[in-house]
Amino acid sequence: MLRYAIIVAGGSGTRMGSEIPKQFLKINGLPVLMHTINTFFDFDNQIKIVLVLPTNQVDYWRELCSTYKFQIKHHITTGGNTRFESVKNGLQIVDTPSLIAIHDGVRPFVSPDTLKRCYHHAEVLGNAIPVLDAFESVRQVDEEKSRALDRSTIKLVQTPQVFKSELLINAYSQDFSPLFTDDASVVETYGETIHLVAGNRENIKITTPSDMVLGEAFIKSGYKDYSDDNDNLLS
Amino acid sequence: MLRYAIIVAGGSGTRMGSEIPKQFLKINGLPVLMHTINTFFDFDNQIKIVLVLPTNQVDYWRELCSTYKFQIKHHITTGGNTRFESVKNGLQIVDTPSLIAIHDGVRPFVSPDTLKRCYHHAEVLGNAIPVLDAFESVRQVDEEKSRALDRSTIKLVQTPQVFKSELLINAYSQDFSPLFTDDASVVETYGETIHLVAGNRENIKITTPSDMVLGEAFIKSGYKDYSDDNDNLLS
Repeated sequence: MLRYAIIVAGGSGTRMGSEIPKQFLKINGLPVLMHTINTFFDFDNQIKIVLVLPTNQVDYWRELCSTYKFQIKHHITTGGNTRFESVKNGLQIVDTPSLIAIHDGVRPFVSPDTLKRCYHHAEVLGNAIPVLDAFESVRQVDEEKSRALDRSTIKLVQTPQVFKSELLINAYSQDFSPLFTDDASVVETYGETIHLVAGNRENIKITTPSDMVLGEAFIKSGYKDYSDDNDNLLS
Repeated sequence: MLRYAIIVAGGSGTRMGSEIPKQFLKINGLPVLMHTINTFFDFDNQIKIVLVLPTNQVDYWRELCSTYKFQIKHHITTGGNTRFESVKNGLQIVDTPSLIAIHDGVRPFVSPDTLKRCYHHAEVLGNAIPVLDAFESVRQVDEEKSRALDRSTIKLVQTPQVFKSELLINAYSQDFSPLFTDDASVVETYGETIHLVAGNRENIKITTPSDMVLGEAFIKSGYKDYSDDNDNLLS
């Protein structure tokens, strides 16, 4: 089935303490977003890549592509005020039927195995998202206090989140809710059961300066996730 | 008030894919556990340090201390079959009244500010534990399926978890429950409200090879958490 990757790069960079949005910061000499696009292209050089950028970053991105002689073909579309709107904009230009991965632009270290698992299980089941176990205790807070959750029941969610096109497009026709923190939550609210597969530990979301440090270190050490070998459905 | 740090080093190393328990692996040329003890000593050179080790690792640790000429005074006691038993053993040898921090041996990067916050708020309120916001979406699984949790309500829990001695000793007189994933959950089950303070992002629990990579990178870059400046109580 035709495969898409909609790569959402909406970050403004405020959490990085940097003027440059984090998707444009350099890791190992190359902007984060180029690493991310390379990862999808290396996985499948027939994949159709849609990049969703804030309107005011498009020119800068084109300049970067020129500066770095970045050759991988991708379609650029502009984002909205929320991630929900940005994904919705990206969905306007995909052909159906297809498998659509929605991926954070600032996750350059997703492994080929994670990509394979997500696309494969989504093709069979309609959707698949990568998750990791929580290695730390987890608490839930309300207005008054916090309480311990059973850590063994908690999964931390990564991207790409992969869906059959008709399912995703229908789910994104719903009204926005503040509880939509990712695409799975949108599709779940639409009534679908979400399927979990193993992510990979190095598939971090580059959010803080420590993540940049880690990213550099991953590349320089050639680090490969020790646990990245579970192709089974987790839930 | 008299301050203790009970440092629990129970790991067997299986998740690292290594024969050497991870507390003994070297970061920047020094075993992880020595970094951890140094951090507490640098924060307060009057602090009383209790190290809880598996019985079969005590000789190895003494050899390491000799090899590395490690001079920081600490009391060694042996652990039990579970973390709960190990902490309980550590509590046998503390003087009261005191403030007791329970800390993972494999968290060498706790910041002085986090330590200060935890001891300070515990002295005022009876307990305090460091937490971080969840940067990723979070799901909870049961036997059938998973569901999205509201990420804004989720906190990831670190150590040190600091308690007034009488509270902690009483809480640890309870029978063990498998839901005791940390000291806060033990004290909470005893009926106490747990107080949350800001942790620091680099205070990672060294669990996988990627964490070793990150640890090396933290030390070499002199990285300091950008968010480590919130001394308020979070909950």
